Amino acid sequence: MVVIGLLTDFGNGDYYAAAMKAVILSICPEARVIDVTHEVSPFNVKEGAFLLWQAARWFPQGSILVGVVDPGVGGGRAAIAVRAGGRYLVGPDNGLLFPAAESLGEPEVREISEDLTLERSGTFDGRDVFAPAAARLAGGLPFEEIGPRADWRVRLELFRYRAGEGWIEAEVLHVDRFGNVVLSAPSGEWRWGTAGEAEVGGKPRRFRLVPSYSAGGEGELLLIRGSSGLLEISMKGRSAAETLGVSPGDGIVLRVDNNVI
Amino acid sequence: MVVIGLLTDFGNGDYYAAAMKAVILSICPEARVIDVTHEVSPFNVKEGAFLLWQAARWFPQGSILVGVVDPGVGGGRAAIAVRAGGRYLVGPDNGLLFPAAESLGEPEVREISEDLTLERSGTFDGRDVFAPAAARLAGGLPFEEIGPRADWRVRLELFRYRAGEGWIEAEVLHVDRFGNVVLSAPSGEWRWGTAGEAEVGGKPRRFRLVPSYSAGGEGELLLIRGSSGLLEISMKGRSAAETLGVSPGDGIVLRVDNNVI
Amino acid sequence: MVVIGLLTDFGNGDYYAAAMKAVILSICPEARVIDVTHEVSPFNVKEGAFLLWQAARWFPQGSILVGVVDPGVGGGRAAIAVRAGGRYLVGPDNGLLFPAAESLGEPEVREISEDLTLERSGTFDGRDVFAPAAARLAGGLPFEEIGPRADWRVRLELFRYRAGEGWIEAEVLHVDRFGNVVLSAPSGEWRWGTAGEAEVGGKPRRFRLVPSYSAGGEGELLLIRGSSGLLEISMKGRSAAETLGVSPGDGIVLRVDNNVI
Repeated sequence: MVVIGLLTDFGNGDYYAAAMKAVILSICPEARVIDVTHEVSPFNVKEGAFLLWQAARWFPQGSILVGVVDPGVGGGRAAIAVRAGGRYLVGPDNGLLFPAAESLGEPEVREISEDLTLERSGTFDGRDVFAPAAARLAGGLPFEEIGPRADWRVRLELFRYRAGEGWIEAEVLHVDRFGNVVLSAPSGEWRWGTAGEAEVGGKPRRFRLVPSYSAGGEGELLLIRGSSGLLEISMKGRSAAETLGVSPGDGIVLRVDNNVI
Repeated sequence: MVVIGLLTDFGNGDYYAAAMKAVILSICPEARVIDVTHEVSPFNVKEGAFLLWQAARWFPQGSILVGVVDPGVGGGRAAIAVRAGGRYLVGPDNGLLFPAAESLGEPEVREISEDLTLERSGTFDGRDVFAPAAARLAGGLPFEEIGPRADWRVRLELFRYRAGEGWIEAEVLHVDRFGNVVLSAPSGEWRWGTAGEAEVGGKPRRFRLVPSYSAGGEGELLLIRGSSGLLEISMKGRSAAETLGVSPGDGIVLRVDNNVI
Repeated sequence: MVVIGLLTDFGNGDYYAAAMKAVILSICPEARVIDVTHEVSPFNVKEGAFLLWQAARWFPQGSILVGVVDPGVGGGRAAIAVRAGGRYLVGPDNGLLFPAAESLGEPEVREISEDLTLERSGTFDGRDVFAPAAARLAGGLPFEEIGPRADWRVRLELFRYRAGEGWIEAEVLHVDRFGNVVLSAPSGEWRWGTAGEAEVGGKPRRFRLVPSYSAGGEGELLLIRGSSGLLEISMKGRSAAETLGVSPGDGIVLRVDNNVI
């Protein structure tokens, strides 16, 4: 039983995601289809790439992840399947699959052959191209037969940051439903002091590194080693994003008191 | 393994859809339950009928689609199961299932027998009537035993439009998350010229027929042969619905320059 | 095939719920994972407990329900698994599982052993603790081996109300998407007269007890024996919650005309 995870910007209020699932089950009835999310902001490839990167590593070996955030559908962008770290990724070559593939390891990219697709409408490759390709893989099609080898055309780098003695400058990658602010810098590479200042838009605020949200005081800004391996700014029971006034794409500078990172 | 697709207006924030799934799996553990959507606007039978019509054709032969948008629950409307084109539809006879059944082909309608239902609460037939009926069908109950033959009481026609020499007047059936405006007229029956005017509320705007969203220019109004086989008005990376100021139910007139449709 | 139902406050827009599902399927590939809901209001343990209580009884014998509304993650609250009425509940011991467990019957509580968990991030026990524990149970781990017996630390009582001759005072437990107002008092224990007054914030309004929403007149306030076994205030095709101006936590007094409850 192969697991197929779906991530799109189609929303939960339409029939698009269901059409993909129905096509998959028509071709490969024994596939296990799981929603990662369909609530990626419309056309937001970067947000989709971040969430796919987050989710992919937890899927069992042999799983297939289909990503469709695809403003260029019907245009010149390639439709690809990627094998990496024992999983498969299927979607447009617009950056969406790149971070997940890189983190899974040693990606091999292939362009999806036209003869694997349904008749193409030109506006819904999720249903016409990516779902059928994923279902064929789930049904046992050898990866080599998905199409000819290809190179990435778009390489999307999510984890950009700069660091110096006692400071790091990173980007807000994601704000979750609780207002936790996920940064573009890994949490594991530095030995942090226990406190410092976070600066957003010229306004520095005290923070303290703690092991979990509940270890914080009321109204205190917390720095967390996030569950994704990235630095995260949080507050106990409140939205850190709202308190800081930040959203994805904003820059944040962290300075630690003891100059040791 | 039979696939059961669920479409309701229960929302994703409540336990109602889960109760239906749990009842289905209690009766038929091997059924594969898939969400079409639970975000149909409350009580909006027409929106539900449109989405069910869209989704149904992609489901494999033998699948069962359960639709519950049911303002008349507990009242006099019939609870029906329909066989059409090798699939089954289960829900209230209030128009919701009609367009899907018609498009699947040669619908046979039966009224769901009371002895197939759970004890009826009077307010939740999705759980008490439709889920059990679908689960029995999935478990192998012959369609003939679902209940006595019946006639449609409500026939909901979605695809109303008028057309003359060089023009067509249609209704906005659906606006998707991207702001694509799906019209009530099929895209396949006319030979379109490449450009013309779309008029909404007295304001004509130029449009151009293109094969995909990405073929459009910035800010250009596009006419698309939609992936559902219906005409669609779109913009590249922007909401055509917002630009036009339209929502479902509004009328649109399209006129082509060369008078050839 | 064991059914695992998931209820969280993670939202549908993030990767958190998918990570839990992926972990479950990595450990127990044959589990059937079903979403109850991921749209519980952030940190709202009471709302989660109500929805879990609603859903749990409909799941087949042997099912496992995982609940994660967990503001105290990483702190001192216990991680527990509960056997009750032939089902299993897994989650934090913060009240979330208590009403469901009590209603399923004769709950036996055990603390989840650390050696069943993934490496703990400290901020995502849903993925690191509860999903693995549920998957082990689904895979056949005897309940006794989930960890040592424990006592509830938090007992959350949802069904508080006071009643006298001809009146009852209850709390708004839940407002659903249709604006139905679910009260904290059971519908089954009283013989109601057919009409009376509902008082919210000093303003009494006439209501009438009817068997279903559609039995009401336009604009009429209805009292319903809800599908969950609780009293419910509704309107036909309109939001009773909006009309009354109530939300969860508000108090309502119902008085029946003939003084007979």
